[in-house]
Amino acid sequence: MKLSAAQISDFDAQGYLFLPDVFSGAEVEVLMREVPGIFAQDRPEVVREKDGKTPRTAFAAQNYNEVFARLARHPRLIEPVEQLLAGQVYIHQFKINAKAAFDGDVWQWHQDYGTWRRDDDMPEPRAMNIALFLDDVTEFNGPLMFIPKSHKLGTLDAGHDVDTTSYPLWTLDHETVTRLVEAGGLVAPKGPAGSVLMFHGNLVHGSPSNLSPWHRTIVYISACHVDNHIRRFKRPEWIAHRDFTPITCLSDDCLLARESAA
Amino acid sequence: MKLSAAQISDFDAQGYLFLPDVFSGAEVEVLMREVPGIFAQDRPEVVREKDGKTPRTAFAAQNYNEVFARLARHPRLIEPVEQLLAGQVYIHQFKINAKAAFDGDVWQWHQDYGTWRRDDDMPEPRAMNIALFLDDVTEFNGPLMFIPKSHKLGTLDAGHDVDTTSYPLWTLDHETVTRLVEAGGLVAPKGPAGSVLMFHGNLVHGSPSNLSPWHRTIVYISACHVDNHIRRFKRPEWIAHRDFTPITCLSDDCLLARESAA
Repeated sequence: MKLSAAQISDFDAQGYLFLPDVFSGAEVEVLMREVPGIFAQDRPEVVREKDGKTPRTAFAAQNYNEVFARLARHPRLIEPVEQLLAGQVYIHQFKINAKAAFDGDVWQWHQDYGTWRRDDDMPEPRAMNIALFLDDVTEFNGPLMFIPKSHKLGTLDAGHDVDTTSYPLWTLDHETVTRLVEAGGLVAPKGPAGSVLMFHGNLVHGSPSNLSPWHRTIVYISACHVDNHIRRFKRPEWIAHRDFTPITCLSDDCLLARESAA
Repeated sequence: MKLSAAQISDFDAQGYLFLPDVFSGAEVEVLMREVPGIFAQDRPEVVREKDGKTPRTAFAAQNYNEVFARLARHPRLIEPVEQLLAGQVYIHQFKINAKAAFDGDVWQWHQDYGTWRRDDDMPEPRAMNIALFLDDVTEFNGPLMFIPKSHKLGTLDAGHDVDTTSYPLWTLDHETVTRLVEAGGLVAPKGPAGSVLMFHGNLVHGSPSNLSPWHRTIVYISACHVDNHIRRFKRPEWIAHRDFTPITCLSDDCLLARESAA
């Protein structure tokens, strides 16, 4: 999967790129079969919502689940990122966000690189997210909202929000978000399971609560150029990884090949 | 404003009717000019979100604001309701819901008539809502979500939710909502300020939080057939009104006429 010049220029201008139907229904099924078992585990990597029960996010599943270990080396996710970051990458963070039906809570407005810089001392925003929808994402189940072009403004002032949700986050204030939205508007890319969403580490984003009866499972790979690895090891290793070895991709059929071999 | 036979049959089948552009921009402006002053008042009718500051809803504004008093007798809101309820109506409840930018909280899944029956002893579901958008309602600012056809199922079992938000509500459980959505799907009518949304007293609905920088102000008139007035006066008079006099409409230009006279 090679991004076109038009796609690269679009990413640069808007700060994100949405690619529907990158993974097949069969591939999504292979991944989704693992998800309930991952969220059921009682381990620090699995963060719950404020109710203490509903899964919010499962960090580092590639380290304790064989199928997600393969996904973390999937060429359809890694190669476009290598293209955009112009070089080899390692995985800084890997998570499955649940945004569970009825109880999935908000993610307040933030920039990911804001956290990576402040908490992990990542030198530059030569890092980005590539997300894979494992459920259909609709207007009803809490889609990600982006402020287009906001990645052009560098790292914005943020406050450390430890109250709103169960997971602490460096979030932007209302005045800043209002100003950015006046300039860039808002978009909420939606599409079927198997779609891929790439976005710049400085793109301002958030997502509302999920009141619908449909889960909204999304896997996020935060990839960083190997030269740009983090310098501070304050957060747990399963949140901010410390293995800076360049990812070597598996074959394009790595998710289904495993199935037929089993 | 007379509903057509097709509109009436649509309301009966789906449980709601969406009518864009019923009120003009000038009329919306006349109303919106009053809203900040209403929400700023420190009185029991103005309910705040859990933060104790953000306005959530202002009940009975027609009793303490002259412009909203006129809206409560507006023929474009009252006549279609009289048509659907087949007779004269009184106002059971009147509120301005803020769903404030950034801080507007959810309304969990519920049927309004469930509350009217349980709390107010309203004999039958011969009562309904007519809502007027005072802001543009988009996918971003917490639009109302309806489960079409759910009004056909009578009053469903509900639990009294006094925890989730600052305002107590008889809400449906997850299993019930899941079952209803499997049958009827979900819709979220959106449109510009000035649009009108009518829905059956038994139609199951809810709305997500508002994370956007745009307020989502909506006025709700809950109108009840005069023969069907409530029998129990448990809730405050400003939540469940006790004046069962039929509404007499003002002229169609009542909002702007006042302006030009002033």
